[in-house]
Amino acid sequence: MKRLNLLLFALLLSFMSVQVYAKDSVQHPSLVLTQNTVQQLREGYQKYPLMHQAIDAMKQRVDAAMQKDMCIPIPKDPGGGFTHEQHKRNYMSMYEAGVLYQVFQDAKYAKYVETMLLKYADMFPSLPTHPVKKSYAPGKLFWQCLNDDNWVVYSTQAYDCVYETLSAKTIKKIEKNLWRPYAKFLSVQNLPVFNRVHNHGAWDVAAVGMIGYVIGDHKIVDQCLYGYFKKPLKGDDNYREQHARAGFYANLNQLFSPTGYYTEGPYYQRYSMTPFITFAEVIQNNEPKRDIFHYRNNVLLNAVDGLIQLTDAKGQFLPYNDAIKEMSIQAPVVVDAIGMAYGHYQNPNYLAVAHLQNKVGVSAGGLMLAKAIAEGKAPSMVARKSTVLTDGNNGKEGGIAFMYSNNPKNQTTMTMKFSKHGLAHGHFDKLSILFYDNDREVLQDYGAARYVNVEAKDGGRYLAENKTFARQTGSHSTMTVDGKCQFDANFDESMKRWGDLLFFDTDHKEYQGMRADQKQVYKGVDMQRTIVQIQDASLNKPFFVDVMEGFSKEEHSYDLAYHYLGQVMDYSFDTFNSEKTLSPLGTEGGFQYIWKVATAETHTKNAQFSWLNDKTFYSITTANTAPTQEFMGLYGANDPHFNLRNQPMYMMRRKGKDVRFVNIFEPHGSIHPATDELVNNTKSQIKNVTDKQLSNGLTQITVDHANGHQYIVLLSNNNDKTAAHQATVNGQDVKWEGPLNVIIK
Amino acid sequence: MKRLNLLLFALLLSFMSVQVYAKDSVQHPSLVLTQNTVQQLREGYQKYPLMHQAIDAMKQRVDAAMQKDMCIPIPKDPGGGFTHEQHKRNYMSMYEAGVLYQVFQDAKYAKYVETMLLKYADMFPSLPTHPVKKSYAPGKLFWQCLNDDNWVVYSTQAYDCVYETLSAKTIKKIEKNLWRPYAKFLSVQNLPVFNRVHNHGAWDVAAVGMIGYVIGDHKIVDQCLYGYFKKPLKGDDNYREQHARAGFYANLNQLFSPTGYYTEGPYYQRYSMTPFITFAEVIQNNEPKRDIFHYRNNVLLNAVDGLIQLTDAKGQFLPYNDAIKEMSIQAPVVVDAIGMAYGHYQNPNYLAVAHLQNKVGVSAGGLMLAKAIAEGKAPSMVARKSTVLTDGNNGKEGGIAFMYSNNPKNQTTMTMKFSKHGLAHGHFDKLSILFYDNDREVLQDYGAARYVNVEAKDGGRYLAENKTFARQTGSHSTMTVDGKCQFDANFDESMKRWGDLLFFDTDHKEYQGMRADQKQVYKGVDMQRTIVQIQDASLNKPFFVDVMEGFSKEEHSYDLAYHYLGQVMDYSFDTFNSEKTLSPLGTEGGFQYIWKVATAETHTKNAQFSWLNDKTFYSITTANTAPTQEFMGLYGANDPHFNLRNQPMYMMRRKGKDVRFVNIFEPHGSIHPATDELVNNTKSQIKNVTDKQLSNGLTQITVDHANGHQYIVLLSNNNDKTAAHQATVNGQDVKWEGPLNVIIK
Repeated sequence: MKRLNLLLFALLLSFMSVQVYAKDSVQHPSLVLTQNTVQQLREGYQKYPLMHQAIDAMKQRVDAAMQKDMCIPIPKDPGGGFTHEQHKRNYMSMYEAGVLYQVFQDAKYAKYVETMLLKYADMFPSLPTHPVKKSYAPGKLFWQCLNDDNWVVYSTQAYDCVYETLSAKTIKKIEKNLWRPYAKFLSVQNLPVFNRVHNHGAWDVAAVGMIGYVIGDHKIVDQCLYGYFKKPLKGDDNYREQHARAGFYANLNQLFSPTGYYTEGPYYQRYSMTPFITFAEVIQNNEPKRDIFHYRNNVLLNAVDGLIQLTDAKGQFLPYNDAIKEMSIQAPVVVDAIGMAYGHYQNPNYLAVAHLQNKVGVSAGGLMLAKAIAEGKAPSMVARKSTVLTDGNNGKEGGIAFMYSNNPKNQTTMTMKFSKHGLAHGHFDKLSILFYDNDREVLQDYGAARYVNVEAKDGGRYLAENKTFARQTGSHSTMTVDGKCQFDANFDESMKRWGDLLFFDTDHKEYQGMRADQKQVYKGVDMQRTIVQIQDASLNKPFFVDVMEGFSKEEHSYDLAYHYLGQVMDYSFDTFNSEKTLSPLGTEGGFQYIWKVATAETHTKNAQFSWLNDKTFYSITTANTAPTQEFMGLYGANDPHFNLRNQPMYMMRRKGKDVRFVNIFEPHGSIHPATDELVNNTKSQIKNVTDKQLSNGLTQITVDHANGHQYIVLLSNNNDKTAAHQATVNGQDVKWEGPLNVIIK
Repeated sequence: MKRLNLLLFALLLSFMSVQVYAKDSVQHPSLVLTQNTVQQLREGYQKYPLMHQAIDAMKQRVDAAMQKDMCIPIPKDPGGGFTHEQHKRNYMSMYEAGVLYQVFQDAKYAKYVETMLLKYADMFPSLPTHPVKKSYAPGKLFWQCLNDDNWVVYSTQAYDCVYETLSAKTIKKIEKNLWRPYAKFLSVQNLPVFNRVHNHGAWDVAAVGMIGYVIGDHKIVDQCLYGYFKKPLKGDDNYREQHARAGFYANLNQLFSPTGYYTEGPYYQRYSMTPFITFAEVIQNNEPKRDIFHYRNNVLLNAVDGLIQLTDAKGQFLPYNDAIKEMSIQAPVVVDAIGMAYGHYQNPNYLAVAHLQNKVGVSAGGLMLAKAIAEGKAPSMVARKSTVLTDGNNGKEGGIAFMYSNNPKNQTTMTMKFSKHGLAHGHFDKLSILFYDNDREVLQDYGAARYVNVEAKDGGRYLAENKTFARQTGSHSTMTVDGKCQFDANFDESMKRWGDLLFFDTDHKEYQGMRADQKQVYKGVDMQRTIVQIQDASLNKPFFVDVMEGFSKEEHSYDLAYHYLGQVMDYSFDTFNSEKTLSPLGTEGGFQYIWKVATAETHTKNAQFSWLNDKTFYSITTANTAPTQEFMGLYGANDPHFNLRNQPMYMMRRKGKDVRFVNIFEPHGSIHPATDELVNNTKSQIKNVTDKQLSNGLTQITVDHANGHQYIVLLSNNNDKTAAHQATVNGQDVKWEGPLNVIIK
């Protein structure tokens, strides 16, 4: 009876709303949730444990929030402060209460949302811009529009969910006092944000667009899709999508590469999931004819795939560019995005990620995930295949290449970055590498120097050392020239340049290879890096031949650094002086933050350096054909506020015009302290390495391994896959095509 | 039919052996396994998953070993070398094959053991002592007798298991060429080991004793129980047990305290489990009248309880004294010991540990554990109750005290050490503390400077820095005086002294307290530490009032250090100079290995220092009543071989005759980078702390907490629990009894 009344009431309301919005009648809910989805949720959310948990958790949080007095403070505090956190809590409570109303059809949840929205509607018209003026675009409820966008994205969904319970008067008041002026504030009154092609722009058009859809104002929606201009772009949808200079389509066209790489890097790619995927879900539900998820060859789905590609085995994002290290697929925005994406493409990797997340978002796709997982369909791990994520909206402006072990039981990941700078959050780290051994970081990227939301650490903002250390070349596993930052730390210069992938070869069972270069990485210096991964049946984990080259007409000092994690075990240098007092490794480029812990005498013999990380040993064996000097460093110099982690690095230096470092990087052996203290292969398994220049631009690198094999890597300067080469190797004639050949004896 | 034959054969053999060993006929197996236990294993090892796994794993290992050629090399290599590791593999293969023979009654396993033992019997008589002369007692198969003892302990069990299949000739040969000369070598020919009261002695008498039991030679057994002397100790068993100067009983009497603490510390307590518990099991099976597990008020079972007490929430042993940090209850010897102990006392904590180990050993008790776990009877975690492990065989020579949180969902552990030195593996760390937050180490003990079995690290032995850094006071969270090691690093002096527990109060729901002192910790300096743990209903985790006092008639420089793990977040000092170049913190006592990273100006204001460890913040708030200077340090100075981990420490210095540091140590707040970057309570919750000396030896410490409470800690110099005290606190008269009273306002 009660239920029938409710339905009648809803029907009545719906009729009323039609009266009010004659031309633009909208079904509710229709943003992320739809009548079809809520019907399914009502019928059986309990059937699928993860959806059951999601709804239960929401209910617990909202029921607890509803016990407290509603608190809508006058905006005052910066990020992390009380009013900031309270308005965040409020939008989340409203959003979740809205969802609960739809699932349980319990009027108390609708009433809660209505009451709070009315309070905001009361407050909003008299609000000045936020008193904390630290942003280029201060918001109303928050110190920056970005947070107001967050607020709107969730609060419009709450409104959408309870719309059917609202009186015409209430609807009118909320629209007039809150949605319309908020849309105006976030668009017309903040055009630099609204028309920006940037994650801030994406968030802003998504927020305003959700207002447009929920109040049924097509004009607002149109501005969000194509940008706000005095003279709107003319043409059919297809034309306008392709040529938009701002708005959702422009962001979609310009910020993602065709492979789904987001130019700012993984940490911000994660952050951008909400405006892109959630708003796309809204577009899909309201204008299915746009087929937004398949726009630009599925670029949105590719972006989800790219985000997954950019994780380690634990689901943590690779810390390229500004990135907080532990940020992972556990982020609620990723949980939501994976669900929505799965609704449009049943990719087994989405299922594997959802399984690792052990959570689903409340959406049509989230429900499908919960069902598939309950049915035991989730793969046990994300499938990884060596691949390249290209950068640039045309996919031709650099990228990141990934090589994986061919032994799924001993997963290793080697990546090389030759992407674009990555806008304001980019780092000067061209041709830097990362290495993971299963779920362990072994060659690290420092990530960002920042403690998000920790007030004592510069209010939780990026620390000064982010710009001068974390972003600069000296903190990355790449080459530094003359102790300076790449591109002389010039942002504009770096923005204009990116690397080229010269070859990427995964056609062979026992080896893979990649080569990228970066022209004019320093004035007058070109740089090229070639990495060959070798793993035959005798090797549990691959080893790597790493050839880093610098080319210049002038004399330079070249430093190749490996930012490893672990404890020094062994080194082969004749003399290695540990410093009695420490001083910094350099004066700029990041080196000013690294203590010079030890220095080797310059020598020409091969060198070997080993360390222990957790329970595995790693070694770098250097074929020294030219005088070389090694350094050991420790982060923490010139760090008066103790902002840096005290972590080590290893570096080798050579002087000359052209330079060429050949290093073998290998995981080896293991130690089992917790059980029986058994150890094996604590010493490098590389017995010798030679680097020999042959004629015709060919190089022969020979690696003698403790397993009895000899590995001969033949490289050509010519990157053409079809170019024929010939060499005499150990007295035998060898012929092959393409830049790479590996012979295993 | 085959089985009947085997039984007949066994009977025949048993008859034959009676002929050979007329007086001392022995049933086999009778060391660790008995006929009763193997009968149960045969009937149903598959019923209990953990026993099934244990037997299956043995079978896999032995079947693989049997595929290879038997290899019994002439002993040559030091620890970690080939011959060393091969003889280790051999004894383990024999032991496991013996067990498998008993379980499966498959003759191939017996034959494997027989063949290998005969090869050893062929080789043994001509073996000189081991060529590597790095031990005070070189062995035969190994560089030290200790490893030979390991070999014998397992190989005799193998022999015991297959005895019934051996011909009289074989038995005679193995006994004559192997067991008897080996027993002679390890006892008479190595009396300094055999008669030593030390883990080496315990291993040695256990090994020789197992030979005695397995060949039925009571004279050998007698020497193992009471020591080898020209004039053996006379008297009845009871008298000899009490008065033994060497042998198993002497070790049992002297090495364990009544509460089960082993004086060398947890890492070696673990190592001693095999000779003590396994040999006790053998004694019990052969001479049940001795009731060895209940000897000395169950000291062996108490030792198992003590070992469990000495673990953190992950089951890792507290790294007091020489200790490899990751050594844990996962060690096979602990798996075996827990099983045997459970056979004699069904302690739920043994079950909880076995559940965490997820393994059982093959023994009567191991089978009982596997059954109980299969039946779901294992508690989910080890029960922890604040307690004291006393040291000294009389339990009156110091000890370690443990205080736990009263909130089982937020387990914290605070320990204080005032034990004896701990023989050759002891550290100079009187009154040092450790703190764990759930399973995380927050205030650490460095443990040992050693990489076991890593050849590049001094052959895997203790590194030089173990003696000069890890063992010395400067690397521990306690007080260092005049920059020197306690007892001037004089081992003999430290061995003569231990601390006294002055009070230990766990009678109150909202607070606990402990106080210990150490007289003459430096010449002319006494030291006392009082720790009060406070946790009322408003606190998820407790905070601690830490009062460290030094007393002397002379002027000294007192340094109180906290060896924390984590990243500096905040500090309150007016001036805190970060050093431009680093130099060591001191010249001895361990300080020579610590870089002085920063130094505060001397000041008298209260000080606060905060850090982040994983996802939780910690602060130390100092009530400064006297001029104080703070230091921040980083391990790694004077470390030419990069043997030390680069970890931080925080230290405060005062000068005077008597000194008194009052610090509040607190966990607070949390950060969730992986999910939504929400943080809370990043700042210390301690708003103020005052330290006020009242009359009559009373002290009032007042703590103002952000939760609105004021905590008043009243301490008396008089440790008498019944002494009556009176004080005027904030204008009110307060009366109480005993050294500690806490008032919460």
